[in-house]
Amino acid sequence: MSEKVKIGVLGPEGTFSEKAARKWNSRAEIRYFEDISDVLEAAQKGEIDSGIVPVENSIEGSIGMTLDYLLEYDVKVTGEVVIPVKHCLLGRRGEDIRVILSHPQALAQCRKHLKSMFPGAELRAVESTARAAEMAAKARNTAAIASEESARRYGLTVLEHSIADMKENFTRFLVIGKQFAPPGGSDKTSIIVYLDENRPGALYDLLGEFARRSIDLTKIESRPSKKALGDYLFYIDFKGHFSDPLVREAIENVKQKTGMLKLLGSFRTADSQMDV
Amino acid sequence: MSEKVKIGVLGPEGTFSEKAARKWNSRAEIRYFEDISDVLEAAQKGEIDSGIVPVENSIEGSIGMTLDYLLEYDVKVTGEVVIPVKHCLLGRRGEDIRVILSHPQALAQCRKHLKSMFPGAELRAVESTARAAEMAAKARNTAAIASEESARRYGLTVLEHSIADMKENFTRFLVIGKQFAPPGGSDKTSIIVYLDENRPGALYDLLGEFARRSIDLTKIESRPSKKALGDYLFYIDFKGHFSDPLVREAIENVKQKTGMLKLLGSFRTADSQMDV
Repeated sequence: MSEKVKIGVLGPEGTFSEKAARKWNSRAEIRYFEDISDVLEAAQKGEIDSGIVPVENSIEGSIGMTLDYLLEYDVKVTGEVVIPVKHCLLGRRGEDIRVILSHPQALAQCRKHLKSMFPGAELRAVESTARAAEMAAKARNTAAIASEESARRYGLTVLEHSIADMKENFTRFLVIGKQFAPPGGSDKTSIIVYLDENRPGALYDLLGEFARRSIDLTKIESRPSKKALGDYLFYIDFKGHFSDPLVREAIENVKQKTGMLKLLGSFRTADSQMDV
Repeated sequence: MSEKVKIGVLGPEGTFSEKAARKWNSRAEIRYFEDISDVLEAAQKGEIDSGIVPVENSIEGSIGMTLDYLLEYDVKVTGEVVIPVKHCLLGRRGEDIRVILSHPQALAQCRKHLKSMFPGAELRAVESTARAAEMAAKARNTAAIASEESARRYGLTVLEHSIADMKENFTRFLVIGKQFAPPGGSDKTSIIVYLDENRPGALYDLLGEFARRSIDLTKIESRPSKKALGDYLFYIDFKGHFSDPLVREAIENVKQKTGMLKLLGSFRTADSQMDV
């Protein structure tokens, strides 16, 4: 008898994180955590086999908190999952809507629509879309922006489908574990670097290590180093697995040019997965 | 008789935006707006002389919404203001704290401290720190994270000073207007670029235009293009005024290499201002 794989996500039941986890592994046992940092801590301690956390949305951009935790915790990135996000307005028919609850990113994604349809309603941010549905189910004159699944789970009605201002809306999640993932054929590598010298061209030099090996950057994102305003860490994603000789060489050279390099891991890109 | 300069900020009274506006121009008339986009719209229409909006915090990073609006609205960046942020816990003495209200960034900046001191309290996000103080003043068992000024303004007590997890905490604001600012001696230039080609080395080539002219990049930040996941705009800040021949040359060359370039403006850097 084999034990079920345990995947940790941001709870409660019905979040988009849970959806991503079920897409990654439909037979896993899902554990719910209160906070993204709790998911990473559980992964670090080995209390779960994997954690699945949101890292960026195609409209709202990176989830800064997740990027910061990836630096803080001793974990590896072992995969990614992309899911379409459909924000629905959940509530009760025939009731005046005075308060609309959701996660701040979801509120931002539906802002224009809500401003024109419910100009008088108060938009109130809560920890997750599922929590918004849970709270709306218990309050009067209150609606939530959340998934269709949440409507079912918390006994609400879908008043409106797909209310985001931009219809193409995807969220990318990272799969977090304790061990590096082996090459999968079409891989991506994630690193965090800190340039300790502030001279003109320092970042240019660093990117040159990738350009001259024709390694394709898929993302570059800056985050505050938290030491001083205007001092940044760079999160860089590029094609290839860290065990590829060219990639290894680029990483080695970048390491010599920077004050700090953290290899987060290499993993199969979501667009190479059959089910995306 | 000269009319007072009108500066628009995110309201209500007592926000850190108002503090930034008073630092920028202590004699201006302050107009309060409900939302950052309303400030930019008023600046675009010329209803205010300047708008002052937060763009990045030294702990939490960029305010994505502000970056997105800079692309959307037809406005120029004409200055920057940096102010130290001291988050205080405001409430009433001798009362149990069950709910703590603040702006999502402020909650994030005090998260560890709040988790250890008030493990059972619900953290609830609202639109601004000042609004949090205003609401806390009217509710029971509710505290707010906001500025010392807000305590005075809304009749609350400072229960704890400076509760942010990292004590070095600054927020940078941009001054928004209709006209480009003239050279001020120690300037910075902000542009937004969209690379329409996805080949390896495209960003590297672009940065080369600055590196080979020894133009110092002070910031590079990616934002989703909102066309597809993994497709980005780059917000680049670098030293110099757009009227400097070398800077003008670099911008011209970058323009030829990119699908879109928006010159946001050139302005005096905050660290060159006497009062910082």
